[in-house]
Amino acid sequence: MGIAYFNGNFLPKDEIKINPDDRGFLFADGIYEVVRWYQGHFYDIDSHLLRLKRSLKELRIIWAEEDSFPYLARELITLNELEQQPSLVYIQITRGVAPRTHDFPSPAVSPTVYAFARNFMPDSSEIENGVDVLLKKEMRWSRCDIKSVSLLPNTLSFQEAKEQGYQECIFIRDGLITEGTHSNIFFVINGSLFTHPESEHILSGITRKNILRIAREEGIPVSESAVPDTMIDNISEAFLASTGAEVTPVIKMGDYMIGDGHPGPITKLLKEKFQTEIIALRD
Amino acid sequence: MGIAYFNGNFLPKDEIKINPDDRGFLFADGIYEVVRWYQGHFYDIDSHLLRLKRSLKELRIIWAEEDSFPYLARELITLNELEQQPSLVYIQITRGVAPRTHDFPSPAVSPTVYAFARNFMPDSSEIENGVDVLLKKEMRWSRCDIKSVSLLPNTLSFQEAKEQGYQECIFIRDGLITEGTHSNIFFVINGSLFTHPESEHILSGITRKNILRIAREEGIPVSESAVPDTMIDNISEAFLASTGAEVTPVIKMGDYMIGDGHPGPITKLLKEKFQTEIIALRD
Repeated sequence: MGIAYFNGNFLPKDEIKINPDDRGFLFADGIYEVVRWYQGHFYDIDSHLLRLKRSLKELRIIWAEEDSFPYLARELITLNELEQQPSLVYIQITRGVAPRTHDFPSPAVSPTVYAFARNFMPDSSEIENGVDVLLKKEMRWSRCDIKSVSLLPNTLSFQEAKEQGYQECIFIRDGLITEGTHSNIFFVINGSLFTHPESEHILSGITRKNILRIAREEGIPVSESAVPDTMIDNISEAFLASTGAEVTPVIKMGDYMIGDGHPGPITKLLKEKFQTEIIALRD
Repeated sequence: MGIAYFNGNFLPKDEIKINPDDRGFLFADGIYEVVRWYQGHFYDIDSHLLRLKRSLKELRIIWAEEDSFPYLARELITLNELEQQPSLVYIQITRGVAPRTHDFPSPAVSPTVYAFARNFMPDSSEIENGVDVLLKKEMRWSRCDIKSVSLLPNTLSFQEAKEQGYQECIFIRDGLITEGTHSNIFFVINGSLFTHPESEHILSGITRKNILRIAREEGIPVSESAVPDTMIDNISEAFLASTGAEVTPVIKMGDYMIGDGHPGPITKLLKEKFQTEIIALRD
């Protein structure tokens, strides 16, 4: 089972038990982060820590030791002997344990902090050859910028996509393509890179941010503006960006084949540059 | 702490521990019900059972013993010696325990079933004198008809209302008044009773359904159609309906005073008729 972290202690994961009055269990009243470990280094854990702090602030959950996240993540890698393996660390922080009422506990209670590390390797064939994605009307709430555990719509939509033979579900809100259930999405149109701007309707992805930086470094024209689903015919390349999927080409959106059905040149370039950064970290 | 129910067993509540891999904790992937016990009888538990089954079906969670809910609820009342006390039973069913992936566990796992009973009495002064409600743009997902534990927007909005001195937050979606964070809302306009129709944007409340029936029995004209927030000036009475709040008059919506600031005659009539049904049950 390995060693996990729970409210200040490192202990065998199977000894960790969540109180049924935990507001994470009763109300989805909590946030999370996932960070990748590349045999020696976390990828951009500073940005993950910043986003974790922002999520906590948005929900007004106070975790006094929030700055300890990089250290406890590192400790989980060590304790689970994952130094030399591709891995991830997951952390979840909820408002804590209190008798069930919709309003926040008063006086406030200590947050619940739970984290684990495990082996993780994305599907290399998906990253190499690309994936098909389902397009679906947005069903999530209006604060998708908060990385909360209120993920029921994400799980339902991803499951629906999977059962229909797709590898991700991409949402369309008010005619604009927003993002996937657990990834951002980028498009190439007329040689320029497009992705939905930061807003309350998408999660500000760490991979998204780094891809935008790399694209600008490479001299690719970048536009952080939403693409309407009516413009699908104009899309020559598309890819997903996420901590898990890194840069994964999209070759089909619903029934629409992107380009010639193979990953395009800008997608390949950004994927290679991103992987170069990771290898540089690792070595 | 009392005796609670967990996966087939009745045991001391403080012995119940949720696995951190429970999809209720990680993904809000579960549903719940709350039923009131009025010293001798549950109020309309048949409808609660029907709705519980519908919620499970919508999420494709299979709980083979779902029909046992009324019996286990009754057992919780007995075991906690609540027969002669106003109480409630809460039940939550999640998809179960599995390593974290957005898609459903495959093969399927057993659901987690957790239930407890406790003393409960609504605020009698609120029911008598009415409450003020905040009006706020809808922020929830598009399947509010499913009684899921993905309740983060509800808790945030209710907290916001409370901090501003209101007793509930009522949502407005696309210009139409839908419902509260944990109640339905009714209006009287020109002597007719209005409430949002059943749809994916509201929970089909058990109290809502019974109030509609009572209103029809009393010869009050009833219209299940949504009221735009622009028609607020035309509202002469308003009230909340929920299992917890029963019929609670609304005397202020945002800055707008309803009628003369006191519960109106149709509200009072429906509240009395509803309470008569409860007393009839109890005696």
